[in-house]
Parts: sequence; structure tokens; C-alpha cells
Amino acid sequence: MSPTPATPRVERIPAGEGAIWVGEGLLRDASRYLVSPSGRFLLVSPASARSASDPIRKALGSAVLLDFEIEDGEAAKSLANVEKISEAALAAGLRRDDAFVAVGGGVATDVTGFAAAILLRGVAWNAVPTTTAGMADAAIGGKTAVNLPEGKNLVGTFYQPVAVLCDVAALASLPDRDFRSGLGEVAKYALTLDVELLDMLERDPGPILARDTGALEPLVARCASLKAGTVADDERDTGIRLFLNYGHTLGHALERLESFAGRSHGEAIAIGMVFAARLAEARGTCSPGLVGRTVRLLTSLGLETDGALPPVRDILSAIRMDKKFQAGVRLVLLAEVGRPVVVAGVTDDEMRTVLIEMGAAG
Amino acid sequence: MSPTPATPRVERIPAGEGAIWVGEGLLRDASRYLVSPSGRFLLVSPASARSASDPIRKALGSAVLLDFEIEDGEAAKSLANVEKISEAALAAGLRRDDAFVAVGGGVATDVTGFAAAILLRGVAWNAVPTTTAGMADAAIGGKTAVNLPEGKNLVGTFYQPVAVLCDVAALASLPDRDFRSGLGEVAKYALTLDVELLDMLERDPGPILARDTGALEPLVARCASLKAGTVADDERDTGIRLFLNYGHTLGHALERLESFAGRSHGEAIAIGMVFAARLAEARGTCSPGLVGRTVRLLTSLGLETDGALPPVRDILSAIRMDKKFQAGVRLVLLAEVGRPVVVAGVTDDEMRTVLIEMGAAG
Repeated sequence: MSPTPATPRVERIPAGEGAIWVGEGLLRDASRYLVSPSGRFLLVSPASARSASDPIRKALGSAVLLDFEIEDGEAAKSLANVEKISEAALAAGLRRDDAFVAVGGGVATDVTGFAAAILLRGVAWNAVPTTTAGMADAAIGGKTAVNLPEGKNLVGTFYQPVAVLCDVAALASLPDRDFRSGLGEVAKYALTLDVELLDMLERDPGPILARDTGALEPLVARCASLKAGTVADDERDTGIRLFLNYGHTLGHALERLESFAGRSHGEAIAIGMVFAARLAEARGTCSPGLVGRTVRLLTSLGLETDGALPPVRDILSAIRMDKKFQAGVRLVLLAEVGRPVVVAGVTDDEMRTVLIEMGAAG
Repeated sequence: MSPTPATPRVERIPAGEGAIWVGEGLLRDASRYLVSPSGRFLLVSPASARSASDPIRKALGSAVLLDFEIEDGEAAKSLANVEKISEAALAAGLRRDDAFVAVGGGVATDVTGFAAAILLRGVAWNAVPTTTAGMADAAIGGKTAVNLPEGKNLVGTFYQPVAVLCDVAALASLPDRDFRSGLGEVAKYALTLDVELLDMLERDPGPILARDTGALEPLVARCASLKAGTVADDERDTGIRLFLNYGHTLGHALERLESFAGRSHGEAIAIGMVFAARLAEARGTCSPGLVGRTVRLLTSLGLETDGALPPVRDILSAIRMDKKFQAGVRLVLLAEVGRPVVVAGVTDDEMRTVLIEMGAAG
């Protein structure tokens, strides 16, 4: 006799009126977790996410009204692509009570969530993130967006998915660099909001780096839960949700610069967190040892903390570009681990000094 | 000595977190009514609305960050135009705390409201409707949308303006047919939700048809207030807001048909209301005399109630097209004036019989 298959480990995290499911081997039971008022689904995913979308296709069977393949990569986040998805959905016979399912990385969930938000003035959508960063952060919170020629994520909505399905088994097939890059967001949660998680990562990152699903499941559940909680307190991104931008001021600026091309979001914010820690130490506004602890954590997770930086003046002008939609520049710094504060009035001189210390050419 | 100018008559109707202002001569004081967190405004309007946008331009002066002219007509309601407005706004230096001002008919308010809803995931917007239908109905309630090749208003959002400014003096310059067409929506409110307004219209429509601003101001205020109240109870269009679709099932279907081209939305729903009254009488579900009363009201407002109709089979297939996004066809009928009900299960045969009675070729 064959052994009874083990019941998959699964955790349910409430998120607004929906839920985030985290576990191992959930994709083949997708029909138990994904939600559609009509029972019909519109699947949107890139070819690169096939190892995750195939079991979903099989689980949903004839309930799949549309199976739409989108391109991968930042260029796919366009209004033109939203129009393509919309037209395909209408041609397939979309009704108001149907639901989208986005399977893939941030591109798939951002574009599909935005299309769902505006088609017929809003139909339901489900997110199935397949990357570490997507599960821990990007697919949770209802931020959807596409790019304009003028910059990233310039049009979008706040529109919560009805369900988020995180199968940590999907992380096993990620390229090593993509997997580690996602740990940048994990480190952000640990440093800003969860000292217990920080202790755990500092004690033994081994099982996580080995992608032991028994270690990844609670890690993803913890980050998703922190994100969902922060968002519930501040859905429209005006107060404490700002803390989740820790490391992102320099991070986003680096991502804008050609000379930084080829490095990922997670790699950029890792350097951004070191920058923020150094700024806080230079200002004398944090407990001692913050820089050392930040560098040790990121290094142990396989993230670089001092890669070659672009020239200071390029970085500063990119920071100003990124902040141009706000009346003033604000930065998230730590008073100590687990205690973020939003700081206004950080000067270019302060930032320049720290960037030069980090190896950027003045 | 010149006489002291009369204080403009103005009424404030609460609408969500914003307000609807109705009065005469308000445009030249636009800076008192329009709202922007930053104090800066992005003006969007067609050339045809210049008599309304010029006093606003003058009133806002240097607070106008962008003065964008859009095309008029249904073709301007496109995602491509939303992208154009977005790019012009970003090029002008848009910040999250700026506000749009849409001046014009339904095209200007629909497109601008939608652009405001999604740019930077939402900036504030003000609506300045310049048509009877816009003031009484379309610009209130936060429905924004653009068209896709597959049909009208297929992508959009529910996104409330921070202020709606209705200057009834603007109605004086409307072409006669446009003015009367807007009275179709007014009649809809009277028949479905406001028997007192109905009595008033039946007693003496003369001052309204003469565009006496003293008569138009309370008329617009009353309709705007009814719309705002209905929307507050049902922002997402699932319950009593459906009542506002009275006359729109046949109306929208007629608007889809080539053979009906050249007639307006108001003219289409006038015929739609006669159709709904006849259906209710044929079913025996309304008080006697509803058809006669409906026809007399619309005729006295200068609206046709029996213009040449397209063939029945074209109308029925257009109705099915219009309802294709719903699981079943529902229709708003009146049990008596002031008492709308949503009815399911109206058959093609019932509709065919009534359409033939109204003169459509079987």
C-alpha cells in the first residue's frame, strides 16, 4: 500500500476582506484557495512561470475562461498591455462576477491587478506570486501599477486581491540570484518591524539559504503577515506604510541609473539599508552598532553591501527625481532595530558624505 | 453710484467627503469653491467649453499648473487620451497633492476623473459640468470611465471628485437641443424618486424651458442632491443606484444602433422611459395611467416619445449586448411614480410586443 500523502502545511493570514494562504504544495489544490464569485477564472501569466501556472491550470480545469500569456520584464508593465488583457477578457466573455488570477513575479501581479481594478470598474483578482519578494512583499497590499515613459509605477490603483496564494515550493525553482535578491525585503521587515525575526535570521540563516521549505514557510508567513498588518493600518500609503520604504530612497535611485543596470531591486535596497544605517549613525540618532549589524545580516543572506556605486552627483539627482511627486524629501531611518522613524530635512551634504564613505566617487 | 452687485445665490450639497455647489455666476469665484491640497490646479477642457473655462482660468490665475485642451466627442474617451493627459501632467511637474479641474460635458469629466484616479495612484479632482445632464447627473457620483473598441465605459473607476461646481448660467449658452436632451435625466429623477419635483414639472415647465436661472438653480440642486444621496447609499452600483438606470436599458441599446445615430443620450432614455412604462402596464404591475403621464411629461419638456425606431430584432440584440457583462437581464420598472423596482426575467416576447406597439418594425 502507498503511504497516505501528508496534508500540506498551510497558514491562513487575514488581509482585508480576503486572505493570504502560505504553505507547501498548495498550487495543485488551487481551486480550494482561489476565489471567484461566478466560479470562472481568467488566468494571466508569463511563460517563465509555467511551473506554477501549470498545476493551477490543471486544478481549475474548465473553470478557466481565458488563459492569457503576458511578456515578462518591466516593459510589459504598460497601459497598452492593460488594454490587451482587457480586450482578451471581453472577447472571452468576461462578466462582472468573474475573477482574474495573476501567476508570476511583480510584473504579472502589478499589470493584472491594475487591469482587474479598472475593467468594468472593477472585477475580483487573485495573486499567485512565485518569487521570494512577491510572496513576502509585492503581491500583498493591493498596490497595482504600470509604467509611463516618464517613470515606473506612475499610474495605478490601490485594489486588494481577494486571495493571495503563496506556495513556497515554487521558490525551489528560482535562479539562485533571484532567490537571494528577495531576501532583501525579508531583511527589511526584520530590521524595521520584527526583532524576533531578526534574531532568528542572525542565529541561523542556513536552512533558509538551503531553501528548506520547512524554514521558508514560516518566513514567508511572517513577512506576509507584517505587510498585511501594516497595510490594514494604512491602506493609502500615507502613514506607517511609509516604513516599508526603508532602504528604498537610495534603492530606487540606484535602479534608475544606467551605471547600476543589471542589479535587482533586492540588491539595490540592501545597499539602501546600509546607506540608511550609516546616515542614522552619522546623525547620532540611532543606537550604536546599527551599521555593523545591518552589514552582517545582509552578508549572511548572500547580499552585497558595498558593490561599485555610481558617482555621487548622479545618485543625488536620481533621488530628487524619485521624490519629485512630493512636496518635500522624507527618509525612513532607524532609531534602533525595530524602531523606524520618518525623518525630514536630510541634506545633500549629509548624503554625499555617507555615499563617499561607501565608495562612491565624489 | 452703481448698485451693489447681488450676492450670487448658491447652495451647498454634501457629497461624500466633498461638496456640490449649485448657483448662478459661480465660475468667476471658482477659487472659492475648487479644492486642491497644494493650491495648484491642472485644468482639462475642450475648446467648446471655453465660455465656462475662461472665467475659471481668470479666477485661478497663476495657480493653474497645466492648461490642457482635450478633443470633444465620444472618441476622446480613450486610454490613449488618459495617457496623454498623464504625460502632460507629469511634464508640468505634477505632485501628489495637486488637483485636476475638468470643465465641460460628460467626455471631459469622465476622462479627467479617470486620469486623476490612476495617476500616482490617485490625485484629487474637481468637476465643473457645463451641460444640463452633467449638472443633474453625470458629473456626480464618481463614476469615471473611458471606452474600448468593444464598447462604451468598459474601463474606469469609482472615484469621487472633491468638489463639483454647477453654474446654471452656463446652461444659457447651450444649443437648444442639448439643453432639452438633458431634461431627459431630470424627468427620470422626477418619475423614479421625486413626486414633488414631478408635480412641479407638470404644473409649469415654462420657466425651465425659458432657462430662467431662478428656476434652473433649484432644479439642478434637487437632481444633484437626489443623485448624491443615492450614491452615498450605494457607491458601488449594486443596489438602489440601479434605479438611476430607469429608461437606460432601451436607451443604451438605441445608442448602440447605427439607425438611431444622431440622437442624444437624453432623447434615447426618454424613449426608454416610455418603453419601461408600457412594459409595466402590459404586465399589469403598475398603477393605471403611467404611460399617459410619462408621455405628457416628456412632451411638455420638448422630448420626443415615439421617434422612428430601429427594427425589433436589432433592438433586442443590442439589449443583450449591453447586458452581456451580467449573469442575467434585469430591468428597472415603476410600480407607480416614485416607486421603482428591479425586475428580473422580462422575456424577449414581452419586449417585442411593446416595441411593435411603439412603431418598431417586427
